[in-house]
Amino acid sequence: MTHMSPEEFRRYGHQAVDWIADYWLRLESLPVAPDVLPGQIRQKLPDHAPEHGEPFEALLADMDDVIVPGLLHWQHPRFFGYFPANTSGPAVLADLLSAGLGVQGMSWATSPACTELEQHMLDWLVEILELPGRFRFDGPGGGVIQDTASSAVLVAIVAALYRASNGRVRQDGVESHQYALYVTREAHSAAIKAAIITGLGEQAVRYVKTDPATMALDVAHLDALVKADLAANITPLFTIATIGTTSTAALDPVADIGRICREHGIWLHVDAAYAGVAAVCPELRWLHDGVAEYADSYCTNPHKWLLTTFDCDAFWVADRRWLTDALTILPEFLRNTPSESGMVTDYRNWQVPLGRRFRALKLWAVLRWYGVDGLRHHIRHGIGLAEQFAQWIRADDRFEISAPPRLSLVCFRLRPIHDGPIHGADPNSMNRDLLARVNASGTTFLTHTKIRDEVVLRIATGGTFTECRHAQQSWQVIQQSATALHAENGRPRS
Amino acid sequence: MTHMSPEEFRRYGHQAVDWIADYWLRLESLPVAPDVLPGQIRQKLPDHAPEHGEPFEALLADMDDVIVPGLLHWQHPRFFGYFPANTSGPAVLADLLSAGLGVQGMSWATSPACTELEQHMLDWLVEILELPGRFRFDGPGGGVIQDTASSAVLVAIVAALYRASNGRVRQDGVESHQYALYVTREAHSAAIKAAIITGLGEQAVRYVKTDPATMALDVAHLDALVKADLAANITPLFTIATIGTTSTAALDPVADIGRICREHGIWLHVDAAYAGVAAVCPELRWLHDGVAEYADSYCTNPHKWLLTTFDCDAFWVADRRWLTDALTILPEFLRNTPSESGMVTDYRNWQVPLGRRFRALKLWAVLRWYGVDGLRHHIRHGIGLAEQFAQWIRADDRFEISAPPRLSLVCFRLRPIHDGPIHGADPNSMNRDLLARVNASGTTFLTHTKIRDEVVLRIATGGTFTECRHAQQSWQVIQQSATALHAENGRPRS
Repeated sequence: MTHMSPEEFRRYGHQAVDWIADYWLRLESLPVAPDVLPGQIRQKLPDHAPEHGEPFEALLADMDDVIVPGLLHWQHPRFFGYFPANTSGPAVLADLLSAGLGVQGMSWATSPACTELEQHMLDWLVEILELPGRFRFDGPGGGVIQDTASSAVLVAIVAALYRASNGRVRQDGVESHQYALYVTREAHSAAIKAAIITGLGEQAVRYVKTDPATMALDVAHLDALVKADLAANITPLFTIATIGTTSTAALDPVADIGRICREHGIWLHVDAAYAGVAAVCPELRWLHDGVAEYADSYCTNPHKWLLTTFDCDAFWVADRRWLTDALTILPEFLRNTPSESGMVTDYRNWQVPLGRRFRALKLWAVLRWYGVDGLRHHIRHGIGLAEQFAQWIRADDRFEISAPPRLSLVCFRLRPIHDGPIHGADPNSMNRDLLARVNASGTTFLTHTKIRDEVVLRIATGGTFTECRHAQQSWQVIQQSATALHAENGRPRS
Repeated sequence: MTHMSPEEFRRYGHQAVDWIADYWLRLESLPVAPDVLPGQIRQKLPDHAPEHGEPFEALLADMDDVIVPGLLHWQHPRFFGYFPANTSGPAVLADLLSAGLGVQGMSWATSPACTELEQHMLDWLVEILELPGRFRFDGPGGGVIQDTASSAVLVAIVAALYRASNGRVRQDGVESHQYALYVTREAHSAAIKAAIITGLGEQAVRYVKTDPATMALDVAHLDALVKADLAANITPLFTIATIGTTSTAALDPVADIGRICREHGIWLHVDAAYAGVAAVCPELRWLHDGVAEYADSYCTNPHKWLLTTFDCDAFWVADRRWLTDALTILPEFLRNTPSESGMVTDYRNWQVPLGRRFRALKLWAVLRWYGVDGLRHHIRHGIGLAEQFAQWIRADDRFEISAPPRLSLVCFRLRPIHDGPIHGADPNSMNRDLLARVNASGTTFLTHTKIRDEVVLRIATGGTFTECRHAQQSWQVIQQSATALHAENGRPRS
């Protein structure tokens, strides 16, 4: 066996760095979405692991031949699907440093810098996003990097159960049909997954109505559901208020929800996975209205729209005690003086996994490379592009905007047609058809959602490499696809 | 704002690669463990995030000035604590490529290559570790990369609950005091954490006795506990058999446990997080005895002892249906034709988080760079060093071996002293003192555990960079520390 020596690492490392730089340079010329059938990538791979080592160049060659053709290119400047998953130079390089260090930050003692840099970065974020001071480590709260908002909401529910039962559930388990969670159907599916994993079951989930125009949580209905549960002797446990839902970037009224939660001792988790980072701009601080007063926990994802390569979900609790009391376990092999002194933070007690990577490095690198003003510029640039898309859509009467455009997201669709040969064509199939055409072009990638049972297309801007000209190119493709669709159905361009 | 351009990325990327190469070269000259007080790293960091961007060189300089002095160097060749967290050149570089691609493999459709390479690598591992064929994707099972063995056992319990209740718990939640889990006190604490998170509570955990000599699960006691639960109308749900426990690398009798599980429909999860990868050596295939016949799920961690940078836990289920039926949620915004065809694997339904990194790349890089024979060499090298340590310990009559040395782990302690001025000194304090002296030397890092209430020191070999001379140096330090300890307590070297 031969390990890769530091000198070989240097040589191949430079090649790998160059490969990425070249990939970013040629991204624009690649089809955004792959054209592969299930199983096709596996067919290109050898049936068995190699008995003997292969040169690193062989891997790099297969990156081009096998991997790249099988990717949806999330970093493509004309990728407007889902929400962005920003990567960026400084984040990639800091993640590289983290991998090279190979330290394991489960406890403070297993690498103090890993824990303390993370605490410090999370405190920095509190300030630049104007989150409440009680989220800071010098208050009762604190922040931690989770892999995703799904894990954040999961541990938030575990903490809420601990608080609601005064610690009893940790020993006794959850009582079936004893607790209720309140979410809207616009909230992220992670809430349902967490209800299943925590043993509450889907039966514990109450779906709160949304306002048909804004898709925001209907506070009166929340109030009614809570009261019905109380009347049935069920404990209202947990409410999610979403700042920027996945489908339409809808904004739940955090303060109004918070007042109900406060009244009944319900844990309020604010899921700002996508939109929270936008509050780095002073003009968008209002996004966090109500958080300071009412949130028991909160998360936002720098790995979505704040240039910090996946995975980096920033999660805070207002009172860290509930979380750590719920999850702390100290087996003998992890005992150490600093942990037992109570003077340090052991992040393993803040999360599902025991082990943890040094993820704070990439957040540090992003904050330092861009500076706060650079981050603001990135957010404003994404919002500007979305506004541009919204204008174009409004100016073309074949289309309609389907929900109030918010931040970097625009939802739109082809209008139903009331004249000519395709009069009365099903607008949902028509819009599915449009989506398929746009994506099949290879130049642009969009995704869809449903609003009030109508299929709509989503344009989510905010990609690291997206410039105005890319938006322009994509808009042309969307228009051309609509024209072709109408023409094939016997309706020339209006 | 300025993004880091591809050309800047190239320049700084080369610097970052060189920084790692240099770090690996100088690792040996660094103290293994840091000498810092709680809060000391934070004091070196500015109170506020920078308003304007800083040059990348500033970050690299702070890596040296702020970060490195605050690390426990897990990759240090004289790090023998916990279990190793191997990093390696090929893994680091493939992880770099993954960060540069920045794709998100939650569904097959969101990057087919990300999913299919992972399936393929997990199938390769089945073959090279001689795991059962039913774990493969062409059988009823399948493998997935989880972040850690903690997440693996968590989703295994969720799947087990689904199976035991015929799917009912997903809707209704868990019935309090209805299910039992069986583990030994030597099993990983992740089992207790998972019992808390899944809503079963610590009350559901039955501690099975261990054999005082081998620390392995006592099958007769397991049988008795299961029967007691059945008599009390409690469903025996889940048993963990550990192949290589954290404290002493003890080996539970998988086949004997499996027979009991089979008889009563108990889900058998085999936790081989540390030791499973050793089965890459034909002479160690016996480690997996019983897995083929009885395991419902199994995990091992290439990020521990198989050169694949954290995080990479390889987790298999014998029947993937229970896992995916328990966790699948398909919101509109994630619907796509391949998912609905049932012809593809959507890994988001195999795990807690929705999003996922392209982690299979690093496993691919490791398997290709080293080849299977290179991996075998690495495992054998680690075992050889542990055997060497065991010989040295046996040859010095001040010490005793505290548990049968296994694989790359040796547990030992200073013998109690029955003569001279420190006759009757508490052996536990004496051994804690020894540990503190060794670690304070900066040259070597060990951790401890307890066996039958006795404090013992653990030497875990298997680090990527550890050569024979490092083991030799560390053994000298251990001997010298013992001599100093005895001398200070009035007992000269025997």
